[in-house]
Amino acid sequence: MVDFSKISEFFESSNIPKNMLNRGQLVLNEFLNPLKILFEQRAVPDKPWTDDQIDFLLQTLSNMDTDKDINAARVGEREARIASKLHLRTSAGFCHGVGRSGFLSAPQPKAPGGSIMYEITNYLARNILRNTGLPNIKDAIVVPLCTGMSLSLTLGALKPDSSINKRTILVPQIDHKSLLKSIDLMGFQTKIIPGQIFGDAVRIPIEQIRNNLDDDCFAIISITSFFPPREHDNIKEISKFAQENNLVHIVINAYGVQSSEWMKLIRSAIDAGRVDAIIQSTDKNFLTPVGGAVIASPIKEKINKISQTYAGRASATPVVNFLISMLSMGLSGYQRLLKEQQENRELLERKLGEFAEKINQRILDIYNPVAVALSLQNLKQKQIYALGGALYNLRVTGPRVYNPEENTFGTCCSNYPIPYIVMNAAIGASEQDITFAVERFEKAYYQIVQ
Amino acid sequence: MVDFSKISEFFESSNIPKNMLNRGQLVLNEFLNPLKILFEQRAVPDKPWTDDQIDFLLQTLSNMDTDKDINAARVGEREARIASKLHLRTSAGFCHGVGRSGFLSAPQPKAPGGSIMYEITNYLARNILRNTGLPNIKDAIVVPLCTGMSLSLTLGALKPDSSINKRTILVPQIDHKSLLKSIDLMGFQTKIIPGQIFGDAVRIPIEQIRNNLDDDCFAIISITSFFPPREHDNIKEISKFAQENNLVHIVINAYGVQSSEWMKLIRSAIDAGRVDAIIQSTDKNFLTPVGGAVIASPIKEKINKISQTYAGRASATPVVNFLISMLSMGLSGYQRLLKEQQENRELLERKLGEFAEKINQRILDIYNPVAVALSLQNLKQKQIYALGGALYNLRVTGPRVYNPEENTFGTCCSNYPIPYIVMNAAIGASEQDITFAVERFEKAYYQIVQ
Amino acid sequence: MVDFSKISEFFESSNIPKNMLNRGQLVLNEFLNPLKILFEQRAVPDKPWTDDQIDFLLQTLSNMDTDKDINAARVGEREARIASKLHLRTSAGFCHGVGRSGFLSAPQPKAPGGSIMYEITNYLARNILRNTGLPNIKDAIVVPLCTGMSLSLTLGALKPDSSINKRTILVPQIDHKSLLKSIDLMGFQTKIIPGQIFGDAVRIPIEQIRNNLDDDCFAIISITSFFPPREHDNIKEISKFAQENNLVHIVINAYGVQSSEWMKLIRSAIDAGRVDAIIQSTDKNFLTPVGGAVIASPIKEKINKISQTYAGRASATPVVNFLISMLSMGLSGYQRLLKEQQENRELLERKLGEFAEKINQRILDIYNPVAVALSLQNLKQKQIYALGGALYNLRVTGPRVYNPEENTFGTCCSNYPIPYIVMNAAIGASEQDITFAVERFEKAYYQIVQ
Amino acid sequence: MVDFSKISEFFESSNIPKNMLNRGQLVLNEFLNPLKILFEQRAVPDKPWTDDQIDFLLQTLSNMDTDKDINAARVGEREARIASKLHLRTSAGFCHGVGRSGFLSAPQPKAPGGSIMYEITNYLARNILRNTGLPNIKDAIVVPLCTGMSLSLTLGALKPDSSINKRTILVPQIDHKSLLKSIDLMGFQTKIIPGQIFGDAVRIPIEQIRNNLDDDCFAIISITSFFPPREHDNIKEISKFAQENNLVHIVINAYGVQSSEWMKLIRSAIDAGRVDAIIQSTDKNFLTPVGGAVIASPIKEKINKISQTYAGRASATPVVNFLISMLSMGLSGYQRLLKEQQENRELLERKLGEFAEKINQRILDIYNPVAVALSLQNLKQKQIYALGGALYNLRVTGPRVYNPEENTFGTCCSNYPIPYIVMNAAIGASEQDITFAVERFEKAYYQIVQ
Repeated sequence: MVDFSKISEFFESSNIPKNMLNRGQLVLNEFLNPLKILFEQRAVPDKPWTDDQIDFLLQTLSNMDTDKDINAARVGEREARIASKLHLRTSAGFCHGVGRSGFLSAPQPKAPGGSIMYEITNYLARNILRNTGLPNIKDAIVVPLCTGMSLSLTLGALKPDSSINKRTILVPQIDHKSLLKSIDLMGFQTKIIPGQIFGDAVRIPIEQIRNNLDDDCFAIISITSFFPPREHDNIKEISKFAQENNLVHIVINAYGVQSSEWMKLIRSAIDAGRVDAIIQSTDKNFLTPVGGAVIASPIKEKINKISQTYAGRASATPVVNFLISMLSMGLSGYQRLLKEQQENRELLERKLGEFAEKINQRILDIYNPVAVALSLQNLKQKQIYALGGALYNLRVTGPRVYNPEENTFGTCCSNYPIPYIVMNAAIGASEQDITFAVERFEKAYYQIVQ
Repeated sequence: MVDFSKISEFFESSNIPKNMLNRGQLVLNEFLNPLKILFEQRAVPDKPWTDDQIDFLLQTLSNMDTDKDINAARVGEREARIASKLHLRTSAGFCHGVGRSGFLSAPQPKAPGGSIMYEITNYLARNILRNTGLPNIKDAIVVPLCTGMSLSLTLGALKPDSSINKRTILVPQIDHKSLLKSIDLMGFQTKIIPGQIFGDAVRIPIEQIRNNLDDDCFAIISITSFFPPREHDNIKEISKFAQENNLVHIVINAYGVQSSEWMKLIRSAIDAGRVDAIIQSTDKNFLTPVGGAVIASPIKEKINKISQTYAGRASATPVVNFLISMLSMGLSGYQRLLKEQQENRELLERKLGEFAEKINQRILDIYNPVAVALSLQNLKQKQIYALGGALYNLRVTGPRVYNPEENTFGTCCSNYPIPYIVMNAAIGASEQDITFAVERFEKAYYQIVQ
Repeated sequence: MVDFSKISEFFESSNIPKNMLNRGQLVLNEFLNPLKILFEQRAVPDKPWTDDQIDFLLQTLSNMDTDKDINAARVGEREARIASKLHLRTSAGFCHGVGRSGFLSAPQPKAPGGSIMYEITNYLARNILRNTGLPNIKDAIVVPLCTGMSLSLTLGALKPDSSINKRTILVPQIDHKSLLKSIDLMGFQTKIIPGQIFGDAVRIPIEQIRNNLDDDCFAIISITSFFPPREHDNIKEISKFAQENNLVHIVINAYGVQSSEWMKLIRSAIDAGRVDAIIQSTDKNFLTPVGGAVIASPIKEKINKISQTYAGRASATPVVNFLISMLSMGLSGYQRLLKEQQENRELLERKLGEFAEKINQRILDIYNPVAVALSLQNLKQKQIYALGGALYNLRVTGPRVYNPEENTFGTCCSNYPIPYIVMNAAIGASEQDITFAVERFEKAYYQIVQ
Repeated sequence: MVDFSKISEFFESSNIPKNMLNRGQLVLNEFLNPLKILFEQRAVPDKPWTDDQIDFLLQTLSNMDTDKDINAARVGEREARIASKLHLRTSAGFCHGVGRSGFLSAPQPKAPGGSIMYEITNYLARNILRNTGLPNIKDAIVVPLCTGMSLSLTLGALKPDSSINKRTILVPQIDHKSLLKSIDLMGFQTKIIPGQIFGDAVRIPIEQIRNNLDDDCFAIISITSFFPPREHDNIKEISKFAQENNLVHIVINAYGVQSSEWMKLIRSAIDAGRVDAIIQSTDKNFLTPVGGAVIASPIKEKINKISQTYAGRASATPVVNFLISMLSMGLSGYQRLLKEQQENRELLERKLGEFAEKINQRILDIYNPVAVALSLQNLKQKQIYALGGALYNLRVTGPRVYNPEENTFGTCCSNYPIPYIVMNAAIGASEQDITFAVERFEKAYYQIVQ
């Protein structure tokens, strides 16, 4: 492909001794070898790549796009002309974006390099999901949209023909604004099946779901990752139910890739019934900047459909970000992070548990491999309200303080009996995050009760 | 804000003479001064910024976001954790993206700097449109979506209440896949009013549009920039028509900012009737990488509505790219590009005209300030077909070759009589693009006819 | 050399159509082609390279050095270990520097890539000098030292054997501190032959030089570029004189490459007698940051000697900087700069001449293709003194104001009759530099005389 | 100094809530705070800075230099004009270099920012040496030269007046080419006092040194760090001897900062007698790219003298590199590296010792806190010769194999009885370096003896 023969000739005839040149070549090959393997195996590399290697790949590919061709004559209205070299950084050189006439994964004649980049990235998306618990998916695509908009897109793609006049989606209660908006945006109705309390946990029994089915329903949403007290759905049963009733079934696996337990639920669901698409955030699961999602499916055609439904082109950056994440962590790096997440989750529960005992509260008994919830029955309404602000000022980000007396949204049911706080030990968090957060929570708590 | 007093003290007590320090301070202030002016005037700077100045702004703001806080305790499931430093480049440091719970322009507590960045960027978007022909818009927002998906979003936001059961959109024939997909995606029906031939041009008479109105229609689309033979719509009349009939009216101004004539049409339309939203591509008009659009409106509330309809967060990169473009060109730089566009448009027509004469063809008489069309009546069907590939291989990108006998899609009517080729002299194209393109077209033409 | 076959295989089997791949390959080859040509021709490229191309070359070569080898076992005391990735930027990746045991251009086993980089850079140094007026040099080396220290190094290398007890160097008066220091540093004596006034110019007649020769002299320095009223030396005659008397002859051509006239003097001198070494600044002639020099010689052995005399290794950065300059300008770019320099020199003389007339002063009649001097006889001693500071505060850098009454150093003679100001139109200066400087000089002048 | 008030005003009037702005300001201040502390304390920071913080400092300072002033009128022959933006990277923006008319640390009117950068860097140089064992030095300077050339410069600066005709330097045998060249370069004679064998070690007894003193001697060199079998000099006694005999005494502490024991020797020597200058490599001690040295002295005037002796300006890069190292490691990071070095040194001795036992050889009994030597008496001459190449091919860099029968240079004596190999566990080496090196040595050994 790249012909470096003249350079080699120079090397041969230079003053540099042969064994030194061989040594140099050896180092260079070591640098370039992972690129070869990537294209050969179409899989997430085992070992992390260096930034320079990632850069080299991105530069080589983006230098195949026609906007880099100084001898091109460009007379379209869209030619990836840029105002500043800084744009090459933010786009990693892929100024043409991805997609063609509203077919996300279609090759773009003006962007051969960008097209290759997108193709290999989608291979990695499929590969990482297969490696983290979903061997039974057939295809996956990285979309430059977050979970919410990805759900809109998926609904738009998988909605019934205009001849079939069904417009309702079953939603086992999920108190999450973006999700509900994504359905509203598309003009569909939601039929929410309310959560019920089981001990500390909130669940939506499959019988309730069955009871709510009516003729206008064409789809059902289910979730894995969510925050307590809401537990994951019984996805396997929902999957069977979807199959029996010919419903589109979309699993929102927002940050669920990090838990092998959640992933196992999806795998069984795929085997047991009908799952059309599984949507996961690239930033929450794969440590990219916000802006992308991986949509996967056990049916190749569905992904194709979704890809073709997108209207127009899109920024290549969220796609590149996923690629960067995969290459910079490698499978081994990612597995190490999964392990650390588990350890941090244990640490969080232990630390919070210790503090709970001190203040006569308790860890709520809710299954969640990422988050931990602690009761706050000792606090008065005003104190609960003050807690969030106090934590923000103490530089704790991400905790959720709920007081069902004031607002039920977030509890996923209508009658949760007690206030509580939720903290996450999510992938990428450090031990320090956990220990600092609990220490400062303690500090904030005593500030408030005084 | 930033307290540099200790540094100043060092300077004072250093071995560096006072007048040298003053000189140094002078240079540094010159470097920083544009930042002050930007926030003071909230307007596109007159003169271009240097890359270093843009970098400095982006770094300062992104260093206000909580993910940069090494003393933070981060226990959310989404904390803008990243796998690689390369992500800081692709996101310009704004790893939290933009938007909050599906409200694009809402400030994010975890991203104070990103929130400021987005706010100032939206000011610049409004400002540049006011400066290029639309003084009568009230608000604008940069969305991380291309024109097509922006139309979907806008339709989703401005669609009637679910109580009102109207689902049809009037579309004066626009043969553009992304656009049609964007309506399909949302589940709406299109009622296309076919184009008619007027001399060389294809137009959709307002009477035809009126005649097509029925009870299910709730919106109408109109366009400015498009490729010949289709001319821009009579937006002013459509605007009046929309007002009279209570229709949502969305103007697709895809790459129309570059033409003061097209912009004038929109300005009059706003004044004369009802325009809900005007959508323009950031890459086609403002030389960013693909991935963003500016949505503007004469009614502040509409923009607010659109911003709130977005489901979830989004990549900050398309927003940052628009900001980079505005700062790196400045108003003066942008105006210079507009002037060059006009000159190149003239050059293109002259060069193509000269060649047309040689081969007994003619420039089609169609109003278009960006594109020029040339008849290809001399060529046989097979030759016409071969022309596109020949041009691609000669490294000409962007020309469109149409043969209505083979395929009417693209002509915006059912009976266009002759084949033709379209070339654009769009903003950002160079003189060389134009001359090379015509030369190579000539070459390809003679290759083919031989 | 680099085997990309696996990548090609992926391309072939990908979804990307063949003609698109060919197009991408074409663009990539265009990008890489200059590298091939560089190593084939070992000459300054005709056309400028892009920054990305330069980067690619530097990265490829620096990735051959052993410090990049993650599988190396490094048990030396010097292994190019670095504390920060930022060091890769400042060294362009060549952390091992250049040189081995005090032989600058010897290949370093730990740095095959760095060794190739240095070798090709020295070829370019020889090539650019041959192209700008010195076809008769045989070798050249880029040293990581400025002109002054390069003279010290050259003197150290070419000094007589310790058995020959000669320690004096003839210097036709050059009032330049660094130069005199460079001789002092080496412990040699200078025998300065005083300048004499010829009209406005200061010259050192060859007869005076002859008269000053004594038994302790082993070398003579001559100069081309200097500031008025001192003119260049009669290098040809000095060259003959050096040959006759067996003196080492070193030409200080500090910023003389930019003038074909000065270069012609050296060429003739080489042909007519003895020139051992010619020293030129990389920053003054080739627009690098400060820190390097090119030492050239008509005798290959001399360059070898100098290279072997350097004690230890050195920073690779000044070498890389010269390489960057050559590649980023290309021969055509450099020649354009030379032409602009000539035009700016004319402009400077015209502008200064116009002002001179206004204030009844005159341009001094001194040959200098870069600088122009203007008499300041109207000003009082205190006013002359104030002028320098006034110009500095008006942001004019580089002018020299001389008042022989106060200080003769700088005039290169003992009795220069009048005060004057010198300005340069050096390579790389812009038209704006010239016009602003004269305008502000005018402003400062009137401030002072009021 | 920098007035950000307009920006603050925007923040206040923006849509961003006040508590979010405070939070953002807090993060930004945390980012900028280390800069304040640096200039306040003029000391190596305790904690490492991030790359972005270092970048920010370098950019702010380099943006004070006049070459960044777009409103300057530059009419000197040297104005830090650059051919490419890449030069800003290699020079960290300090295109003017350091030094003025051959006074390295003199402020440059054209480079106020560069001058401040150099001043603070020299403070850090003094500070780190005071913190690593030399509280009794008074000043230090970072020079853009390696150890060898730094010795040349120091000798040039501290040599006797030309009236005093002394030209010999006492050198306790040091078999290091660069060092000997640095003396040759300056035209001085070396009087080498031969090493003697004491057990396994080679030392030069102080009595022998005393005996060699003659009237032509004006200076003496001593060393700390060197490779076995040569041990460090008895610097304290040499210091007394230098004082008694009025000799300039220069300590070559090439890579000695990493050992508190070697540093202790120098500290005592300073207290006990005369030490003029101590020279240490920046790359070997402080993990910069090759190209700089720190020269320190207990007498402030000596450093001033050396600084003033340099002929001309120099590249700023080696200075910046030292600054980058200090900021990126911080004192705590540096101390951790020192600790790791000690552990790796122990590991190296243990691993080599184990292998020595297997092959009936032994670790030589020589004091050296960095290197370990192993006897190779089992090997034949040809085998010893082959060992070096074998190790190079196995990617082991840095080991030294000596066979005194073939070549005595390197043993620092005339009659070392046995062959040996030396390996280093130097600062910055990893555990992997050590284990891999010994494993591969073992492999190479068995390859060779078969």
